[in-house]
Formats: sequence, C-alpha cells, structure tokens
Amino acid sequence: MTDLRIENATILTCDASDRIIDGGVVIRDGKIASVGEIRPEDAGLPRLNFGGDYLMPGLVQGHIHLCQTLFRHEAEGRPLLRWLQERIWPFEAAHTPDTLRVSAELGVAELLRCGTTCLLDMGTVRHQDSIFEVLERTGIRAGAGKAMMDFGEGTPTGLLERTAASLDESLSLARHWHGAAGDRIRYFFAPRSVLSCSGDLQQEIGRLSAAHGYGIHTHSSEHPEELAAVEAMYGRRSIDVLDSFGLCSERSVFAHGVHLDPSERRTLADTGTTICHCPSSNLKLGSGIADTVTLLREGINVAIGADGAPCNNGLDVFVEMRLAHLLQGPRHGPGALTPRDVFRMATTAGARALGWADRIGVIEPGRDADLVRLRRDDPRLGPGGDPWTRIVCAGMRDLVRDVWVRGHRVVESGTLTVLDEDRLRSEAPAALRAVFDGLESI
Amino acid sequence: MTDLRIENATILTCDASDRIIDGGVVIRDGKIASVGEIRPEDAGLPRLNFGGDYLMPGLVQGHIHLCQTLFRHEAEGRPLLRWLQERIWPFEAAHTPDTLRVSAELGVAELLRCGTTCLLDMGTVRHQDSIFEVLERTGIRAGAGKAMMDFGEGTPTGLLERTAASLDESLSLARHWHGAAGDRIRYFFAPRSVLSCSGDLQQEIGRLSAAHGYGIHTHSSEHPEELAAVEAMYGRRSIDVLDSFGLCSERSVFAHGVHLDPSERRTLADTGTTICHCPSSNLKLGSGIADTVTLLREGINVAIGADGAPCNNGLDVFVEMRLAHLLQGPRHGPGALTPRDVFRMATTAGARALGWADRIGVIEPGRDADLVRLRRDDPRLGPGGDPWTRIVCAGMRDLVRDVWVRGHRVVESGTLTVLDEDRLRSEAPAALRAVFDGLESI
Repeated sequence: MTDLRIENATILTCDASDRIIDGGVVIRDGKIASVGEIRPEDAGLPRLNFGGDYLMPGLVQGHIHLCQTLFRHEAEGRPLLRWLQERIWPFEAAHTPDTLRVSAELGVAELLRCGTTCLLDMGTVRHQDSIFEVLERTGIRAGAGKAMMDFGEGTPTGLLERTAASLDESLSLARHWHGAAGDRIRYFFAPRSVLSCSGDLQQEIGRLSAAHGYGIHTHSSEHPEELAAVEAMYGRRSIDVLDSFGLCSERSVFAHGVHLDPSERRTLADTGTTICHCPSSNLKLGSGIADTVTLLREGINVAIGADGAPCNNGLDVFVEMRLAHLLQGPRHGPGALTPRDVFRMATTAGARALGWADRIGVIEPGRDADLVRLRRDDPRLGPGGDPWTRIVCAGMRDLVRDVWVRGHRVVESGTLTVLDEDRLRSEAPAALRAVFDGLESI
Repeated sequence: MTDLRIENATILTCDASDRIIDGGVVIRDGKIASVGEIRPEDAGLPRLNFGGDYLMPGLVQGHIHLCQTLFRHEAEGRPLLRWLQERIWPFEAAHTPDTLRVSAELGVAELLRCGTTCLLDMGTVRHQDSIFEVLERTGIRAGAGKAMMDFGEGTPTGLLERTAASLDESLSLARHWHGAAGDRIRYFFAPRSVLSCSGDLQQEIGRLSAAHGYGIHTHSSEHPEELAAVEAMYGRRSIDVLDSFGLCSERSVFAHGVHLDPSERRTLADTGTTICHCPSSNLKLGSGIADTVTLLREGINVAIGADGAPCNNGLDVFVEMRLAHLLQGPRHGPGALTPRDVFRMATTAGARALGWADRIGVIEPGRDADLVRLRRDDPRLGPGGDPWTRIVCAGMRDLVRDVWVRGHRVVESGTLTVLDEDRLRSEAPAALRAVFDGLESI
C-alpha cells in the first residue's frame, strides 16, 4: 500500500449531493484523506496525473459464484433447475481444493479487471477455505460463505450435508474468516435456497445470524419452476417461507427477486432485505426480468451482480449495469430506471448489502480508498451526455485503467498486479479437465 | 492492400458444414486464395502467425445511422416518436456537411474496431455525399442511402422534402455511388418509414428499386405508438402497407420487426425481405423484444444491427449478439436462439441482406478477404465451450486484434489504420456544439 496524490481527475463523488469535482484525491493508509483541495502535508506524496480521467467508487457486485467461473460456457441451453441438476451441481461436487482455487482466481481476476472491488460470493459446499484464501491473497473486498445444502431433489451425494455438519462447518469458517484481513473479508451464511435447505437448517441460520451478526446470502424468487416447487412444498411463496425462518433482515441478500408479489415486496422493504438483481443470468436461464423499478419505488435495497460465469457468460459489472438500464424500457418506458439509479445499485446499494455502507461507495474523506480510474478520452464516452449515462450505457471494462482496494493498486494500466494471468491461463484447462475426470466417480 | 499468408489460426469457416480448421489462409488481391493448406506459389508471401487466435468472417450490421453517432448520450429517456421529434430529427436537420462527416467517421471508427466490416446505413436527408465519402475513404463495405422524408407529423422544415426532389436526389446519388470503390459501396433507397413518406413516394421507390436493382432500407413494426399511427392512417398493418407499395423484396431490409402478426411474417418470408434485429435499441426506446426465434423458424432472413448510437448507446456488434441470444430466454426458453444462430445473423444473413451473399460471410477460396482476428487466449473465451458460445456469449470488442476488408488491414493490433482517432476525439465536441448552435436557427 502506497500513499498517493491523484491529480487532475474528474471525481464522481457519489455523495449525498452527487458532486462531480475536477481535482485531486489523496490516499493515505488505505483511506481517502482528502478530496478536491491539496493539503500542505500532502504536497510531497507520489503523484498520479489522471489527465481528466474519471475517478469513481469501486463497484460492488452483490451475487457471484467464484466456484463456477471454471465452468463457463459448459452449461448452455438449460432452465434453472436442469442447469443445476445436470451441470452445475455435479461440477461443483467434483471440485478439489485446487480446482476451486483456480476457479476463484479466474473469477477474482475478471472482477478486478472490470472495476469490481467488492463482491458477495456464494461458495460451494466443500473446500471453502480455498476461496477465502484467494480473497485474502488478492486483496479484493468480499463477503463470502460456504453453500449449505442438506435437502432436495437431485442434489449429488458430494454436495449433500447433514444439517448439524453444515452448521458446524459454517460456524467454524465464520469464526476463522469473519473480519479477516482487517475486516476486508466478512462471513455470510449461504443457504443455497429454500429448495436445498431443510426447515431446521434455515431456522437455525436465522437464529445464528441474529446472534452473531453474520450475513445471510441466498437465492429466491428466481424461476417459475422454482416458485412452483416451493409452493408445492410449503403452500406459501418463497419470501414468506424465508421470513418465517427469520432469514429476512438488514443482513440478508437474496439474489434475483424476479417473481415477487406485493406482500413479498412489503416484507422485503419492512425487513431491510436486499435484492440482488442479476439481469443477464435471469435472461440466460429463462427466469424472466425483475421489476427493479417497482422494487426501488417501494423502498427495497437493490444491488446488482453477474451471478456465476456459466449463466452469464462473464462477470462484467458494466455489462450488467447497461442491461439493468435497458431491460426496464419495454415495461416501464425509456429511462424509467435511470443510469444514476443503476450506478447506485452498483455502489451504495451494494455497499449497504454487504454492511459496508459507511466505508465504501462514496468518495469522501475517511472512507476506504476503493477506487476505479476510467479512461475518459474514449469516443464511446462522448462527446455528449452526463457521466452516469456515459458510464452505465456505454462503459466497458476496456476503459478501466487502474483499480485500488483500500489504497492497494490491484490493477495498473489495465494489468492485474495481484494475480499472474499467464499462469491462470495455463492452469485453467487442466483444472477443468480434472473436474470432468472427477465427474465419473460420482 | 498487401498479399498475406496467415498461419496458425483457428479458422471459423462458417461454410455449409461449419468446418473449424487449424491452419492458414492466404490473401491475394483482396480475396481469399486458399484455406488450410499452403500452396507452393504462396510460400514467399509475408507471414502473420496468429498463435492460435480465431480467424472469422468480418461481421455485418444491417441497420446503422452513422449520421447519429455524434448525438450519442444526448437523447435519453424518450419513447420512439418523441425521441425522433424532440431530439434526433432536429439534430439531423442541423447537420452541416462537416458535422456529418465527423459523425460518420466516429461511427466507422467504432464499427471497424469491433470487427464490423460491412454495414447498411440509413443516412439523413441532406449532405449524403459526406457519408459516402467517409465510406469510400475508410475502406469499410457498405450499403447506404439518403433518408427520404416527404411527409409526416413533427418533421422539421430542414428535413421535409418535396416528393420529386427526394426521388431525384436519391437517383442522382445512386448513379454516382452504386457500385463505387470496386463495388464495395452500394446504394439503398432509404424511405424513413411509412409515417414519414407519402404513398406516392413509396410507390415510386418500389418501382425504381425493381427497375434498377437498388436496395430498399426502412424502419417497420418497431414501437406500439408507430403501429397505432400506421393503422390510423392506412387502416392496415405496416408490412401490408409496405407490400402494397412494392417495397417487400429480396433487396429490402426492414429494421426492427418487433411487432408482426402471422400474416405479415408470411409476407416477409414469401418476398424474401430481411428483418434487421436491433435488440438494444428496441429495449432503449421501450419498443419491445422482437421474436427472432419465430422469425427464423418461419424462414425469414434475420440480420442484426446496433441502430444509431443515441438509442444504444454504442455500435458494438458483440453487445448486440450477446443480447440477441439472451433476450429469447424468457419467451422461448434457454438456448432457443443458439449462439450459432446469432453468429449467422451477423455474418451470412447480413451478407444476404446487403446482396453480398456470394462474396462475404464465409471463409473459402474466391471470397473477398473481409476477416477478423480475435484473441483466443483471453480467459473469458474459455476454458470450456465451443467457439460460437465463447464469441457470442462472452466476446467483446477488446478481443478484436486485426480487421481486414478486401485484404486491406483497417485495424492492426487494435488500432485503426484508416482514421486518426486522436483527430476525431478533438473534432467531436466542436462538431456537437456546431449542431447545437444550428438548432436555434430552425
């Protein structure tokens, strides 16, 4: 971590009055020390001239599966439940600690390169330490937890747990990793879904989350087939089931929320539960289009995420932001979800979802220096328009020049400093083959 | 133009049996001389080692408005008709020959950089020579024509033409530009839409197109408000109106086709008319989602295009391809429109739409050397999956390394060789200001 004086930037502060400041930012001890003016005591710091480039808060993705990055392009053309049962779950069950490490590294590399400085990850059932070690080593900010699955049709033996063992392992991981790396890593319980968890397990997660303050990260209200299965099992809708187990709270992030009735939305708003919108994934698996305009209007916190690589087929937050904006057009009319709304989903809403609302998402003194430099001289970002329209509607990852997490420069001139991409490139095919080989023994 | 021997490529031939060949391609006199084996007479040519990168046909976009590139990010949050009347038409009316040149250059630069080697452009009403000169000079392959507007509510004075003058100017341009640059440029009549053209004008375009073989390029069946206005005026649906004027033919390309009934689709299939699918634009303006799965099943030729920058907000064919694939998920189920289907839209279907089906879209000896080199070592293109899934679902323009049109290398290692992007960057803001200044005098 090097203290730094950034000069000549176009600073998108994202503060309460949405100020855009032409000037500088000083980073000291991983934090934003000043914005705009240069203080006398910072005159001697190393300088970086932005040449007018945008400086914006690091972007946050509220739903990622690092364990699936390796399986990209290998689970095409299937609706959610078949996609899980025929491809994703058997693949996950065949992971070794090392293939899981490769998968997580591929994912983190891609996330950092597109300016994602913080993610909420759902792990797989086994070998979760592999993922945490990658998070710790690469410097990215994350909430994460092992997937919990003690129930459900089609779950491979390799993923099915006993209820008590699932809780024990989760608690053991949480004790080790929650608050690790100077609170850059936090533990989130990750019950996979209502269909993959027994009622006992969900009930106990609700109790432990409230007792210890760990977050909760699950899937809900994603696909019509899933909805029907939940109704058949519980005679109630998903959010009602989750709420009855105490899983709706300000610490909770539910991925998708494509199919929600008014009463479910009221529960989400009243409990402060976050919905993480995953527009590419919802199209890819035939789930539908989440009504984010209504969710926001009703006061629900809405984050954004790419989900896993096999249902996307990438992890690029710029792709998700543009799509989130566009997809509301046919239902609500053009511009109903403004670029500024979408940018908020990827910054302050994501920060709130992960419990870091006071630390990231805004560029102001005292916050952590999780920052992104975006080339401003690209013709796609002009000549007209405001910064939000430019970035959300036409921004792409090839514009990301530098990325900092807590003052540590993890991407420099478009190149990762924290992972060797050449090594990753050569390890990935062998790791995928190892998973395929492992499939036979299931 | 330099003869060239490409070696060590992964060649996506896109031929009838969809062969993928590891090997080389020889370019001579702007054409593909051989594929796969190296002939003795080509041994001495300059070599380019692809290192395993993909070699694929240049991509084709069947609906672009180069004249609008300058207005990017300046027409947000409006449905189709207001978007036209309040922003796009006044902007177009304020174009000078020089601002139009800048707009077209910005567009061509972006198109070539993303591997688009061929486009069908709808011009604006005046100064069309500016656009043709850019097409000629930059080496891109194109069909184009001046917009024709002799009718309609909200049309600014600066765009409204007399019927005879519109036809005379179109014919004069066609005589000059059709077949120019060694048949790299072709003329397409461009009646703006049923709502912007009198019946007399449309009738005469139909007659002249059949007599001279010029193509026809228009908008149709895009937005519910447009449909209602056509019904109110003619008491019939758009395709029926266009067909009654003789505008449906194998030479015809209709942008959008979002709202079509079975009888209209039958007319399109029977007449060989192409629909150009513009998925981003249709979401952005709140038009809807075209049912491309049904269009293809019923034998309609479906091309793909970005439309204009202000309704997109870019011109990137990779963005459109990915979206075309994803958007069919909720209606028809995952994978209903396969990546291979989508790639065909952007190659052979586009080639057919522009009348170049025998010259481009396939890599085989005798065809024109319109080619794209795509980096294959990027983690986003693997490790699993077939080339179509990789490219359509995860391809991005930053993977485009080199681009050739008729053997001329227009992009080299990601940099344009035919336009000075630094100059363009500095000219664009002044050109946009000039258009804004021109608005006051309307």
